[in-house]
Amino acid sequence: MRLFDYRASGNCYKVRLALAQLALPYERVPVDIFAGETLTDEFAQLNPVRTTPVLVPDDGPPLPESGAILIHLAEGTSLLPDDPADRAQVYRWLFFEQSALMPTIAGLRFRLITGRLTPDSSGARARRHMAEQLLGLLADHLAEREFVVETGYSVADIAVYAYVHVAGDAGLTLPEAVEAWIGRVEAQPGFMNDLEPYPANAQAGASVSIYDG
Amino acid sequence: MRLFDYRASGNCYKVRLALAQLALPYERVPVDIFAGETLTDEFAQLNPVRTTPVLVPDDGPPLPESGAILIHLAEGTSLLPDDPADRAQVYRWLFFEQSALMPTIAGLRFRLITGRLTPDSSGARARRHMAEQLLGLLADHLAEREFVVETGYSVADIAVYAYVHVAGDAGLTLPEAVEAWIGRVEAQPGFMNDLEPYPANAQAGASVSIYDG
Repeated sequence: MRLFDYRASGNCYKVRLALAQLALPYERVPVDIFAGETLTDEFAQLNPVRTTPVLVPDDGPPLPESGAILIHLAEGTSLLPDDPADRAQVYRWLFFEQSALMPTIAGLRFRLITGRLTPDSSGARARRHMAEQLLGLLADHLAEREFVVETGYSVADIAVYAYVHVAGDAGLTLPEAVEAWIGRVEAQPGFMNDLEPYPANAQAGASVSIYDG
Repeated sequence: MRLFDYRASGNCYKVRLALAQLALPYERVPVDIFAGETLTDEFAQLNPVRTTPVLVPDDGPPLPESGAILIHLAEGTSLLPDDPADRAQVYRWLFFEQSALMPTIAGLRFRLITGRLTPDSSGARARRHMAEQLLGLLADHLAEREFVVETGYSVADIAVYAYVHVAGDAGLTLPEAVEAWIGRVEAQPGFMNDLEPYPANAQAGASVSIYDG
Protein backbone atom coordinates (compact mmCIF):
# COMPACT_ATOMS: atom_id res chain seq x y z
CA MET A 1 0.00 0.00 0.00
CA ARG A 2 0.95 3.64 -0.44
CA LEU A 3 0.71 6.52 2.00
CA PHE A 4 0.37 10.05 0.59
CA ASP A 5 2.11 11.82 3.37
CA TYR A 6 3.40 15.17 4.62
CA ARG A 7 6.31 14.90 7.04
CA ALA A 8 5.35 17.93 9.15
CA SER A 9 1.72 16.88 9.59
CA GLY A 10 0.78 15.35 12.92
CA ASN A 11 -2.16 13.64 11.23
CA CYS A 12 0.26 11.96 8.82
CA TYR A 13 2.67 11.11 11.63
CA LYS A 14 -0.14 9.22 13.42
CA VAL A 15 -0.43 6.90 10.45
CA ARG A 16 3.34 6.46 10.09
CA LEU A 17 3.56 5.58 13.79
CA ALA A 18 0.75 3.03 13.58
CA LEU A 19 2.26 1.47 10.45
CA ALA A 20 5.65 1.26 12.19
CA GLN A 21 4.23 -0.33 15.33
CA LEU A 22 2.21 -2.81 13.27
CA ALA A 23 5.32 -3.53 11.17
CA LEU A 24 3.32 -3.04 7.97
CA PRO A 25 5.33 -2.34 4.82
CA TYR A 26 4.24 0.61 2.68
CA GLU A 27 5.50 3.04 0.11
CA ARG A 28 5.62 6.62 1.29
CA VAL A 29 4.64 9.21 -1.32
CA PRO A 30 5.72 12.64 -0.08
CA VAL A 31 3.23 15.45 -0.76
CA ASP A 32 4.45 19.04 -0.45
CA ILE A 33 1.22 20.70 0.66
CA PHE A 34 2.53 24.25 0.50
CA ALA A 35 4.01 23.72 -2.96
CA GLY A 36 0.45 23.03 -4.11
CA GLU A 37 0.79 19.28 -4.51
CA THR A 38 -2.62 18.61 -2.93
CA LEU A 39 -4.24 20.98 -5.44
CA THR A 40 -3.57 18.91 -8.55
CA ASP A 41 -6.23 16.97 -10.46
CA GLU A 42 -4.34 13.77 -9.59
CA PHE A 43 -4.58 14.47 -5.87
CA ALA A 44 -8.29 15.28 -6.17
CA GLN A 45 -8.78 11.72 -7.42
CA LEU A 46 -7.28 10.48 -4.15
CA ASN A 47 -9.05 12.97 -1.91
CA PRO A 48 -11.29 15.76 -3.21
CA VAL A 49 -11.02 17.43 0.21
CA ARG A 50 -7.26 17.73 -0.50
CA THR A 51 -6.07 16.83 2.98
CA THR A 52 -3.30 14.44 3.95
CA PRO A 53 -2.80 11.63 4.88
CA VAL A 54 -4.38 9.40 2.24
CA LEU A 55 -3.79 5.66 2.45
CA VAL A 56 -4.11 3.77 -0.82
CA PRO A 57 -4.46 0.04 -0.14
CA ASP A 58 -3.40 -2.44 -2.79
CA ASP A 59 -6.98 -3.59 -3.30
CA GLY A 60 -9.32 -0.84 -2.15
CA PRO A 61 -10.28 2.78 -2.74
CA PRO A 62 -8.14 5.65 -1.37
CA LEU A 63 -8.78 6.32 2.30
CA PRO A 64 -8.36 9.87 3.66
CA GLU A 65 -8.90 11.00 7.29
CA SER A 66 -6.29 9.94 9.82
CA GLY A 67 -8.94 8.69 12.27
CA ALA A 68 -10.46 6.41 9.67
CA ILE A 69 -7.05 5.12 8.63
CA LEU A 70 -6.11 4.39 12.25
CA ILE A 71 -9.26 2.35 12.94
CA HIS A 72 -8.87 0.52 9.64
CA LEU A 73 -5.23 -0.40 10.22
CA ALA A 74 -5.75 -1.34 13.87
CA GLU A 75 -8.63 -3.75 13.22
CA GLY A 76 -7.72 -7.18 14.56
CA THR A 77 -4.50 -5.95 16.21
CA SER A 78 -3.54 -5.03 19.76
CA LEU A 79 -4.02 -1.36 18.85
CA LEU A 80 -7.83 -1.74 18.89
CA PRO A 81 -9.62 -3.75 21.59
CA ASP A 82 -12.04 -6.53 20.62
CA ASP A 83 -14.75 -5.77 23.15
CA PRO A 84 -17.42 -3.49 21.58
CA ALA A 85 -17.64 -1.14 24.60
CA ASP A 86 -13.85 -0.76 24.74
CA ARG A 87 -13.60 -0.21 20.98
CA ALA A 88 -16.26 2.49 21.25
CA GLN A 89 -14.11 4.34 23.80
CA VAL A 90 -11.23 4.29 21.30
CA TYR A 91 -13.54 5.76 18.64
CA ARG A 92 -14.63 8.40 21.14
CA TRP A 93 -11.10 9.64 21.67
CA LEU A 94 -10.32 9.61 17.97
CA PHE A 95 -13.29 11.89 17.30
CA PHE A 96 -12.51 14.09 20.30
CA GLU A 97 -8.95 14.50 19.09
CA GLN A 98 -10.06 15.60 15.62
CA SER A 99 -12.87 17.92 16.66
CA ALA A 100 -11.41 19.41 19.85
CA LEU A 101 -7.66 18.87 20.29
CA MET A 102 -6.64 19.40 16.66
CA PRO A 103 -8.31 22.75 15.96
CA THR A 104 -7.08 24.15 19.28
CA ILE A 105 -3.63 22.71 20.05
CA ALA A 106 -2.52 21.88 16.50
CA GLY A 107 -4.27 24.91 15.04
CA LEU A 108 -2.56 27.26 17.49
CA ARG A 109 0.84 25.63 17.03
CA PHE A 110 0.66 25.80 13.22
CA ARG A 111 -0.48 29.42 13.16
CA LEU A 112 2.16 30.62 15.64
CA ILE A 113 5.06 28.72 14.06
CA THR A 114 4.21 29.81 10.54
CA GLY A 115 3.43 33.43 11.38
CA ARG A 116 -0.32 33.26 10.75
CA LEU A 117 -1.09 34.47 14.28
CA THR A 118 0.92 36.43 16.82
CA PRO A 119 0.83 35.16 20.42
CA ASP A 120 -1.14 38.18 21.67
CA SER A 121 -3.80 38.19 18.95
CA SER A 122 -7.40 37.43 19.91
CA GLY A 123 -7.30 34.36 17.64
CA ALA A 124 -4.29 32.98 19.51
CA ARG A 125 -5.74 33.84 22.91
CA ALA A 126 -9.04 32.09 22.15
CA ARG A 127 -7.28 28.94 20.94
CA ARG A 128 -4.87 29.00 23.92
CA HIS A 129 -7.72 29.30 26.41
CA MET A 130 -9.56 26.34 24.90
CA ALA A 131 -6.36 24.31 24.52
CA GLU A 132 -5.51 24.83 28.21
CA GLN A 133 -8.96 23.66 29.27
CA LEU A 134 -8.68 20.58 27.07
CA LEU A 135 -5.19 19.73 28.34
CA GLY A 136 -6.59 19.99 31.88
CA LEU A 137 -9.34 17.50 31.03
CA LEU A 138 -6.80 15.20 29.43
CA ALA A 139 -4.60 15.42 32.53
CA ASP A 140 -7.51 14.53 34.82
CA HIS A 141 -8.28 11.56 32.58
CA LEU A 142 -4.69 10.32 32.40
CA ALA A 143 -4.01 10.81 36.11
CA GLU A 144 -6.23 7.78 36.70
CA ARG A 145 -5.24 5.66 33.71
CA GLU A 146 -2.11 4.27 32.15
CA PHE A 147 -3.38 4.89 28.61
CA VAL A 148 -6.15 6.90 26.99
CA VAL A 149 -8.42 3.86 26.96
CA GLU A 150 -7.69 1.76 30.02
CA THR A 151 -7.60 -1.59 28.23
CA GLY A 152 -4.12 -0.62 27.03
CA TYR A 153 -2.10 1.25 24.46
CA SER A 154 -4.23 1.81 21.34
CA VAL A 155 -4.65 4.04 18.32
CA ALA A 156 -6.37 6.48 20.71
CA ASP A 157 -2.95 7.08 22.31
CA ILE A 158 -1.35 7.48 18.89
CA ALA A 159 -3.97 10.02 17.82
CA VAL A 160 -3.80 12.09 21.01
CA TYR A 161 0.00 11.91 21.21
CA ALA A 162 0.64 13.30 17.71
CA TYR A 163 -0.16 16.95 18.44
CA VAL A 164 -0.18 16.93 22.26
CA HIS A 165 3.50 16.00 22.56
CA VAL A 166 4.43 19.16 20.63
CA ALA A 167 1.95 21.45 22.41
CA GLY A 168 4.95 23.22 23.98
CA ASP A 169 5.72 24.65 20.51
CA ALA A 170 2.51 26.64 20.91
CA GLY A 171 3.54 28.01 24.29
CA LEU A 172 1.33 25.55 26.14
CA THR A 173 2.52 23.89 29.34
CA LEU A 174 1.84 20.18 29.57
CA PRO A 175 0.36 19.04 32.89
CA GLU A 176 2.41 16.48 34.82
CA ALA A 177 -0.05 13.61 34.17
CA VAL A 178 0.17 14.29 30.44
CA GLU A 179 3.99 14.38 30.53
CA ALA A 180 4.00 11.05 32.37
CA TRP A 181 1.68 9.51 29.79
CA ILE A 182 3.89 10.84 26.97
CA GLY A 183 6.73 8.89 28.58
CA ARG A 184 4.62 5.73 28.61
CA VAL A 185 3.70 6.18 24.93
CA GLU A 186 7.33 6.71 23.95
CA ALA A 187 8.30 3.52 25.79
CA GLN A 188 5.99 1.38 23.66
CA PRO A 189 7.52 -1.28 21.39
CA GLY A 190 8.19 0.06 17.93
CA PHE A 191 7.72 3.67 18.97
CA MET A 192 9.37 6.19 16.64
CA ASN A 193 9.01 9.89 16.03
CA ASP A 194 9.76 11.31 12.59
CA LEU A 195 7.52 14.38 12.78
CA GLU A 196 9.40 17.18 11.05
CA PRO A 197 9.28 20.94 11.65
CA TYR A 198 7.19 22.99 9.23
CA PRO A 199 9.37 23.81 6.22
CA ALA A 200 10.06 27.36 5.03
CA ASN A 201 7.34 27.26 2.39
CA ALA A 202 4.68 26.76 5.11
CA GLN A 203 5.26 30.32 6.36
CA ALA A 204 2.31 32.73 6.03
CA GLY A 205 2.05 34.16 2.53
CA ALA A 206 3.47 31.05 0.91
CA SER A 207 0.28 28.98 1.46
CA VAL A 208 -1.71 27.79 -1.51
CA SER A 209 -3.79 25.17 0.28
CA ILE A 210 -7.53 25.60 0.81
CA TYR A 211 -6.84 24.18 4.25
CA ASP A 212 -4.81 26.07 6.74
CA GLY A 213 -4.18 23.49 9.44
CA MET B 1 -29.82 2.37 27.68
CA ARG B 2 -30.09 6.10 28.21
CA LEU B 3 -29.35 8.96 25.83
CA PHE B 4 -28.39 12.32 27.32
CA ASP B 5 -29.78 14.45 24.60
CA TYR B 6 -30.44 18.00 23.42
CA ARG B 7 -33.35 18.30 21.00
CA ALA B 8 -31.86 21.16 18.96
CA SER B 9 -28.47 19.49 18.48
CA GLY B 10 -27.82 17.90 15.11
CA ASN B 11 -25.23 15.65 16.75
CA CYS B 12 -27.92 14.37 19.13
CA TYR B 13 -30.43 14.04 16.30
CA LYS B 14 -28.01 11.72 14.47
CA VAL B 15 -28.14 9.31 17.37
CA ARG B 16 -31.92 9.55 17.74
CA LEU B 17 -32.29 8.81 14.02
CA ALA B 18 -29.97 5.79 14.16
CA LEU B 19 -31.76 4.46 17.26
CA ALA B 20 -35.12 4.89 15.53
CA GLN B 21 -34.00 3.16 12.34
CA LEU B 22 -32.47 0.32 14.33
CA ALA B 23 -35.66 0.10 16.43
CA LEU B 24 -33.60 0.16 19.63
CA PRO B 25 -35.47 1.12 22.81
CA TYR B 26 -33.86 3.78 25.02
CA GLU B 27 -34.67 6.34 27.64
CA ARG B 28 -34.16 9.91 26.56
CA VAL B 29 -32.74 12.22 29.24
CA PRO B 30 -33.18 15.82 28.08
CA VAL B 31 -30.24 18.12 28.80
CA ASP B 32 -30.81 21.88 28.58
CA ILE B 33 -27.33 22.97 27.50
CA PHE B 34 -27.98 26.69 27.74
CA ALA B 35 -29.54 26.35 31.18
CA GLY B 36 -26.16 25.01 32.33
CA GLU B 37 -27.16 21.36 32.64
CA THR B 38 -23.92 20.13 31.04
CA LEU B 39 -21.92 22.11 33.60
CA THR B 40 -22.96 20.11 36.66
CA ASP B 41 -20.69 17.67 38.52
CA GLU B 42 -23.11 14.89 37.58
CA PHE B 43 -22.74 15.63 33.88
CA ALA B 44 -18.94 15.76 34.17
CA GLN B 45 -19.09 12.14 35.34
CA LEU B 46 -20.79 11.26 32.05
CA ASN B 47 -18.60 13.45 29.86
CA PRO B 48 -15.90 15.77 31.22
CA VAL B 49 -15.86 17.54 27.84
CA ARG B 50 -19.51 18.49 28.57
CA THR B 51 -20.84 17.90 25.07
CA THR B 52 -23.99 16.07 24.05
CA PRO B 53 -24.97 13.41 23.05
CA VAL B 54 -23.81 10.88 25.64
CA LEU B 55 -25.07 7.30 25.33
CA VAL B 56 -25.10 5.32 28.57
CA PRO B 57 -25.42 1.59 27.80
CA ASP B 58 -26.91 -0.72 30.41
CA ASP B 59 -23.59 -2.47 30.88
CA GLY B 60 -20.80 -0.17 29.78
CA PRO B 61 -19.22 3.21 30.45
CA PRO B 62 -20.80 6.43 29.15
CA LEU B 63 -20.05 7.06 25.49
CA PRO B 64 -19.81 10.66 24.21
CA GLU B 65 -19.08 11.76 20.61
CA SER B 66 -21.82 11.23 18.06
CA GLY B 67 -19.44 9.61 15.57
CA ALA B 68 -18.35 7.01 18.12
CA ILE B 69 -21.95 6.34 19.13
CA LEU B 70 -23.00 5.88 15.50
CA ILE B 71 -20.26 3.32 14.75
CA HIS B 72 -20.98 1.50 18.02
CA LEU B 73 -24.73 1.27 17.42
CA ALA B 74 -24.37 0.35 13.75
CA GLU B 75 -21.95 -2.54 14.33
CA GLY B 76 -23.47 -5.74 12.94
CA THR B 77 -26.41 -3.92 11.31
CA SER B 78 -27.18 -2.75 7.78
CA LEU B 79 -26.07 0.76 8.78
CA LEU B 80 -22.39 -0.31 8.72
CA PRO B 81 -20.97 -2.54 5.96
CA ASP B 82 -19.09 -5.73 6.87
CA ASP B 83 -16.28 -5.39 4.36
CA PRO B 84 -13.25 -3.67 5.96
CA ALA B 85 -12.62 -1.33 3.01
CA ASP B 86 -16.27 -0.28 2.88
CA ARG B 87 -16.42 0.22 6.66
CA ALA B 88 -13.33 2.40 6.44
CA GLN B 89 -15.10 4.67 3.94
CA VAL B 90 -17.95 5.08 6.44
CA TYR B 91 -15.42 6.06 9.12
CA ARG B 92 -13.86 8.50 6.70
CA TRP B 93 -17.12 10.37 6.19
CA LEU B 94 -17.90 10.39 9.91
CA PHE B 95 -14.57 12.09 10.61
CA PHE B 96 -14.94 14.47 7.67
CA GLU B 97 -18.38 15.47 8.91
CA GLN B 98 -17.09 16.27 12.39
CA SER B 99 -13.92 18.08 11.39
CA ALA B 100 -15.09 19.89 8.24
CA LEU B 101 -18.87 20.04 7.80
CA MET B 102 -19.78 20.64 11.45
CA PRO B 103 -17.55 23.64 12.21
CA THR B 104 -18.51 25.31 8.94
CA ILE B 105 -22.17 24.53 8.15
CA ALA B 106 -23.41 23.83 11.67
CA GLY B 107 -21.14 26.46 13.21
CA LEU B 108 -22.41 29.14 10.82
CA ARG B 109 -26.05 28.14 11.25
CA PHE B 110 -25.84 28.16 15.06
CA ARG B 111 -24.09 31.52 15.20
CA LEU B 112 -26.46 33.23 12.76
CA ILE B 113 -29.66 31.84 14.30
CA THR B 114 -28.63 32.68 17.84
CA GLY B 115 -27.22 36.13 17.09
CA ARG B 116 -23.56 35.28 17.70
CA LEU B 117 -22.58 36.41 14.20
CA THR B 118 -24.23 38.75 11.72
CA PRO B 119 -24.36 37.57 8.09
CA ASP B 120 -21.88 40.22 6.90
CA SER B 121 -19.25 39.68 9.62
CA SER B 122 -15.85 38.34 8.62
CA GLY B 123 -16.48 35.26 10.82
CA ALA B 124 -19.69 34.50 8.93
CA ARG B 125 -18.11 35.17 5.55
CA ALA B 126 -15.17 32.84 6.25
CA ARG B 127 -17.46 30.03 7.38
CA ARG B 128 -19.81 30.59 4.43
CA HIS B 129 -16.95 30.43 1.94
CA MET B 130 -15.66 27.16 3.37
CA ALA B 131 -19.18 25.72 3.71
CA GLU B 132 -19.92 26.48 0.04
CA GLN B 133 -16.73 24.72 -1.07
CA LEU B 134 -17.55 21.68 1.06
CA LEU B 135 -21.14 21.51 -0.23
CA GLY B 136 -19.71 21.60 -3.75
CA LEU B 137 -17.44 18.64 -2.98
CA LEU B 138 -20.36 16.79 -1.42
CA ALA B 139 -22.48 17.48 -4.50
CA ASP B 140 -19.77 16.14 -6.82
CA HIS B 141 -19.54 13.03 -4.65
CA LEU B 142 -23.30 12.45 -4.50
CA ALA B 143 -23.88 13.13 -8.18
CA GLU B 144 -22.23 9.77 -8.87
CA ARG B 145 -23.59 7.78 -5.93
CA GLU B 146 -26.91 6.94 -4.38
CA PHE B 147 -25.56 7.24 -0.85
CA VAL B 148 -22.47 8.69 0.83
CA VAL B 149 -20.78 5.28 0.77
CA GLU B 150 -21.87 3.42 -2.32
CA THR B 151 -22.56 0.10 -0.61
CA GLY B 152 -25.82 1.65 0.62
CA TYR B 153 -27.47 3.79 3.24
CA SER B 154 -25.28 3.90 6.36
CA VAL B 155 -24.47 5.94 9.44
CA ALA B 156 -22.35 8.08 7.11
CA ASP B 157 -25.60 9.32 5.53
CA ILE B 158 -27.12 9.92 8.95
CA ALA B 159 -24.09 11.93 10.08
CA VAL B 160 -23.87 14.06 6.94
CA TYR B 161 -27.64 14.58 6.75
CA ALA B 162 -28.03 15.98 10.27
CA TYR B 163 -26.60 19.44 9.62
CA VAL B 164 -26.57 19.50 5.81
CA HIS B 165 -30.36 19.25 5.50
CA VAL B 166 -30.72 22.47 7.50
CA ALA B 167 -27.88 24.34 5.76
CA GLY B 168 -30.51 26.65 4.25
CA ASP B 169 -31.02 28.10 7.75
CA ALA B 170 -27.50 29.50 7.39
CA GLY B 171 -28.26 31.12 4.05
CA LEU B 172 -26.52 28.34 2.13
CA THR B 173 -27.99 26.99 -1.10
CA LEU B 174 -27.97 23.23 -1.42
CA PRO B 175 -26.73 21.93 -4.78
CA GLU B 176 -29.18 19.81 -6.75
CA ALA B 177 -27.28 16.55 -6.18
CA VAL B 178 -27.37 17.17 -2.42
CA GLU B 179 -31.10 17.94 -2.51
CA ALA B 180 -31.73 14.72 -4.43
CA TRP B 181 -29.70 12.72 -1.88
CA ILE B 182 -31.66 14.35 0.98
CA GLY B 183 -34.79 12.99 -0.67
CA ARG B 184 -33.29 9.50 -0.78
CA VAL B 185 -32.31 9.68 2.90
CA GLU B 186 -35.77 10.84 3.91
CA ALA B 187 -37.31 7.93 1.99
CA GLN B 188 -35.41 5.34 4.07
CA PRO B 189 -37.40 2.94 6.27
CA GLY B 190 -37.84 4.31 9.77
CA PHE B 191 -36.72 7.80 8.82
CA MET B 192 -37.89 10.52 11.20
CA ASN B 193 -36.88 14.08 11.90
CA ASP B 194 -37.38 15.53 15.37
CA LEU B 195 -34.61 18.14 15.25
CA GLU B 196 -35.99 21.20 17.05
CA PRO B 197 -35.21 24.88 16.52
CA TYR B 198 -32.78 26.47 19.00
CA PRO B 199 -34.79 27.60 22.03
CA ALA B 200 -34.84 31.19 23.30
CA ASN B 201 -32.18 30.53 25.93
CA ALA B 202 -29.65 29.64 23.20
CA GLN B 203 -29.58 33.27 22.03
CA ALA B 204 -26.26 35.11 22.41
CA GLY B 205 -25.74 36.39 25.93
CA ALA B 206 -27.71 33.56 27.49
CA SER B 207 -24.94 30.96 26.88
CA VAL B 208 -23.19 29.36 29.82
CA SER B 209 -21.59 26.44 27.97
CA ILE B 210 -17.83 26.18 27.47
CA TYR B 211 -18.75 25.05 23.96
CA ASP B 212 -20.42 27.37 21.58
CA GLY B 213 -21.55 25.02 18.82
